[in-house]
Amino acid sequence: MKKFENFSEWFDSIIFNADILDNRYPVKGFAVYKTWGFRIIKRILEILEQKLDETGHVPMLFPVVIPEDAFVKESEHIKGFSSEVFWVTHAGERTLDKKLLLRPTSETAMYPMFALWIRSHADLPLKVYQSVAVYRYETKATRPLLRMREFLWNEAHTAHRSWEEAEKQVWEAIEIYNYVFKRLSLSYLILRRPDFDKFAGAVYSIAFDAWNPDGRVNQIGTVHNLGENFAKAFNITYEDVDGTHKNVVQTCYGFGVSRVIAAIIAQHSDDHGLILPPDIAPIQVIIIPIVYKGTTAEVNAYAREVYEMIKNEGIRVHLDDSDDKTPGEKFYYWEMFGVPVRIEVGPRDQRERKITLVDRVNLRRRVVNFGDTVRFIKEMFNEVAKNLEERSQQTLKELIIDASDMNSLGEIIRNRKIARVCWCENIECAEKIRELSGGEIRGYRVDVEEKPEKPCIICERTARRVVYVAKAY
Amino acid sequence: MKKFENFSEWFDSIIFNADILDNRYPVKGFAVYKTWGFRIIKRILEILEQKLDETGHVPMLFPVVIPEDAFVKESEHIKGFSSEVFWVTHAGERTLDKKLLLRPTSETAMYPMFALWIRSHADLPLKVYQSVAVYRYETKATRPLLRMREFLWNEAHTAHRSWEEAEKQVWEAIEIYNYVFKRLSLSYLILRRPDFDKFAGAVYSIAFDAWNPDGRVNQIGTVHNLGENFAKAFNITYEDVDGTHKNVVQTCYGFGVSRVIAAIIAQHSDDHGLILPPDIAPIQVIIIPIVYKGTTAEVNAYAREVYEMIKNEGIRVHLDDSDDKTPGEKFYYWEMFGVPVRIEVGPRDQRERKITLVDRVNLRRRVVNFGDTVRFIKEMFNEVAKNLEERSQQTLKELIIDASDMNSLGEIIRNRKIARVCWCENIECAEKIRELSGGEIRGYRVDVEEKPEKPCIICERTARRVVYVAKAY
Repeated sequence: MKKFENFSEWFDSIIFNADILDNRYPVKGFAVYKTWGFRIIKRILEILEQKLDETGHVPMLFPVVIPEDAFVKESEHIKGFSSEVFWVTHAGERTLDKKLLLRPTSETAMYPMFALWIRSHADLPLKVYQSVAVYRYETKATRPLLRMREFLWNEAHTAHRSWEEAEKQVWEAIEIYNYVFKRLSLSYLILRRPDFDKFAGAVYSIAFDAWNPDGRVNQIGTVHNLGENFAKAFNITYEDVDGTHKNVVQTCYGFGVSRVIAAIIAQHSDDHGLILPPDIAPIQVIIIPIVYKGTTAEVNAYAREVYEMIKNEGIRVHLDDSDDKTPGEKFYYWEMFGVPVRIEVGPRDQRERKITLVDRVNLRRRVVNFGDTVRFIKEMFNEVAKNLEERSQQTLKELIIDASDMNSLGEIIRNRKIARVCWCENIECAEKIRELSGGEIRGYRVDVEEKPEKPCIICERTARRVVYVAKAY
Repeated sequence: MKKFENFSEWFDSIIFNADILDNRYPVKGFAVYKTWGFRIIKRILEILEQKLDETGHVPMLFPVVIPEDAFVKESEHIKGFSSEVFWVTHAGERTLDKKLLLRPTSETAMYPMFALWIRSHADLPLKVYQSVAVYRYETKATRPLLRMREFLWNEAHTAHRSWEEAEKQVWEAIEIYNYVFKRLSLSYLILRRPDFDKFAGAVYSIAFDAWNPDGRVNQIGTVHNLGENFAKAFNITYEDVDGTHKNVVQTCYGFGVSRVIAAIIAQHSDDHGLILPPDIAPIQVIIIPIVYKGTTAEVNAYAREVYEMIKNEGIRVHLDDSDDKTPGEKFYYWEMFGVPVRIEVGPRDQRERKITLVDRVNLRRRVVNFGDTVRFIKEMFNEVAKNLEERSQQTLKELIIDASDMNSLGEIIRNRKIARVCWCENIECAEKIRELSGGEIRGYRVDVEEKPEKPCIICERTARRVVYVAKAY
C-alpha cells in the first residue's frame, strides 16, 4: 500500500485531489482551505463547540494581534514562543509605536482581559473558548496540515478558585477531547509530556498523540494546568468568600483542527482516497444511477425518488445524475471524496424497487428493499464508524513495540514505529534516547497506569515511567 | 430619548452592558467580542451563509497574510489601500525576505489562486465566500463596531464568462443582502456610489447605507462589479467554447458583520437596552417566575413545565429561576440583553394554567392559556420583527429631507439628518457640497429610479441624479 510505503506523496495527493487544501499559496506555510475541507472543518468544530457549550464554556473572539508588553509578561511563555512569532511593525507608511505580534496562542491576548473581568469568587469558574487561526514561524520544513505557519485550532481558557478545581477541569477537558476524537474514530495515546517538553508557562501538559502511517506521531490536542503562573504575571486575582484576595488557578487546552483533519486522512483513508466518518462527511450518501439505453428515464426517476426519501430524513445526500461521466468514473470520483455510503440504482433495482448499498471502507455491497433504505443507511453509518475505529486501533497497537535495549529502540524508530521504553526520568537519559534513536520521549499514559517492569533503558537504574518514544510532526 | 440625544454614549453603554464587545483591549481599534455578541454574530452568519450556499457559492478559507508582490498588482487597488495596511516584517529575530500584509480585503489573496483554478468555461462561474476578520489601519478616530482596525465580515468573490453574467451576479448579491438585512428588520438606502467613491479596482460600487440615530450613515454592505480589472492584473483567463482565451469578468461583495451588529443596536434598541430580532436572539424567550412566599414551589414547578414545553418546540428559551435577584431586577437584566419575548409566571397564572407574555418592543402584556403558548410566542416573534422593521422604516423616512438650496442642505446635515439633493455629476460640485455642508454624496438609489426635478444644487445646471448626502462612519 502506498499509504504505508510513501506516506508523504500519498497524503499530499489526497489533500489536493479531495479538495481539502491547496498548498500553492504564494507564502510558505500558508495555504487555502478548499470547500470540501472547509465543510469538514465546520462539522468537526460544531461537534466540539456543542460539547464545550454543554459543559459551561462560552464562546468569545479575541483580536489576532497582541501587544509586545502583554506578550513578555510571563517569562517562561516568552522564552518558549519568542523565536517563532510574526511581528507587525508598520501600518501604511508609519512605524507602529508599539510592536504587535500575531497570536501564536492566546494566553497573552486573553489574560489582561481576565484580570478586568474577574473580581470575586462569584465570577469563577470562567471558561472561555474561541475557534481561530494561530501563527507560528516554524523553522522546520513546513507540511500541509501537519506543520503550517498558519493553522486552525480551538483554544479554551479557564480560571478557577483552587488547584483542585483546576485539576478537575483538566480531566473535563480530556474527556471532552476524547469524546470528539472518538466521534471521529481516531486512535491516539494520551500522554503526560516530560517536564522538558511541557507548554511554555504550564505546570504540566497532557497531549493527544495520534498515530501516522510513517510512525511519526501527530499531536492533535493538548491540555495544560497553568497553576498560578499566568495569574501572577497578569495579576488575575479574586476576592474569596472570606474576603481574602487570591490568585486564580488556570488551565488551557487546544484542539488542533488542521492536525485533526490530517489525522483523519492519515488514519482512515486508503489508496482510493479519503474516507470520512459519517458524522463529519459533507455528503453522507451519494446516489449513482446505473443507466442503460432504454431505461434511463425510469432509473433516473426512481433514483430521484430514493433521493427525496433519504433527504427528508435529514441525511446529507447527493444525487449524481450528471451525464458527463460513466457510473465507474463517478464511483472513483466520490470514493476520492470519502463519501461513506454509496447507493447504486440500476434497472433491476428499479424494477424490483430495491437499492444497492456500498460502504466506503470495505466496498461491500448489500441489496435492500426501498422501504428499508434509511434503516440500512443508518446501520451502515454505524458500521463505517466502527470499522474505521477498529482498524485504526489495530494499527496503533501494531505500531507500538516494546524496546528492551538501545539497539532495539534504534531499530524500532528506524522502522517507523513507536517504541515503549522504561525511563528513569533523568533528562540526561532522555537526551541520550533522542541522540541514539532519533526519536523523542513523548511521555507516559495518563488514562492507563503502566508500571515499569524493567530498569531505565539507558542508565539501568530504577525506571520510574513507561514512556513512548517516537518521531513527531 | 438618550438614543437620539447622545447616541455615542448610549451606544457604548449598550455594547458594554449587553455583553457585545469589550473595548478595553490594549491595542487601539481592536476589541473582544464577548459571548452574547459573538452568539448573535454566529446566527447572522448562519442566515447569510445558508443563503450563499443555496445560490451556488462555496465556502473556503484563505490566509490572513498577503505577499507584497500580489498586493501591488492592481494599480488602483493598491492606491486605495496602501496607506492603511498592517505590515508583517519580522518573524522571531529574522527579517522576512518578502514583506506580508494583513488582508484589508481578500482580492489579492484569492485571485492568484483563481488564476490557477480557472482554465476553461466549464470552471465558470466560480463563486467563493469566506467569513473572516480584515485589517485596516483607520487613521480617523476608531469607534467600537462602527470603525475598527480589525472587523468581521463575509466577503464573496465571483468570476464569470461575460459582463452580462457579472451584471446578473451583482443583482443576485443585492438580493441576497436585501434578504438577510430584511430578516434583521434593518432599514437602509441601496446606493450606487459616485465614481470618486467606488471601491479601489472596481468599475462601479453599490452600497447599503443603514441609518444611525446621529444622522451619520453606516455602510453595512457593498457590491462591486470589477469588470476585467483584476483579471488583467492577475492573468485570470479561460478557454471559451470556441477555443479563444478570454479574461474572466469578476464581482465581489462584502457583508459587514461588525457594522450590521452596530446597525441592529442603533436602529432597534432603546433606553432599556438591546432589542433583538427573534431570528438572531441567542435566547428568544425568557421565563421569569413571580414567586411569593408560600407559592414558590408550585410556581417554579409550573414555570419549569412551561419551559420544557417551549424548549421541545425548538425555541431558544431560558428559565431564570435563580433566587439572587427580584423579578423586577430580572426584567431589567433581560431587557438589556434584548430577549424579544418575556414570559411571567405568577401564582394566579399557575392556578389558572395561564401565562403572561410580554414583548420587548412595546412591553405589551398578553395573558394566554398554557395550551396556546407556542402559537402566541410565534405570533409575537412575527410582531416583534414587524414592529422593529416598521419603526426603523419610519425613522429612515423622517431622517431624509429634501434640500432645495445650499442653506437648507447645511442645516439638514447640522441637524443630523440625511439630505436628498439634485446633482449634475460633476466632481467640483461634489467637492463644494462636502465643503459647504460637511456631508458627502453617498450616491443614487438603484432599487428605485428617482428623476431629478430640479437643477444641480450647486451649479444650477441640469441635474443628472438625485443623490443622498450625509456624514458617514
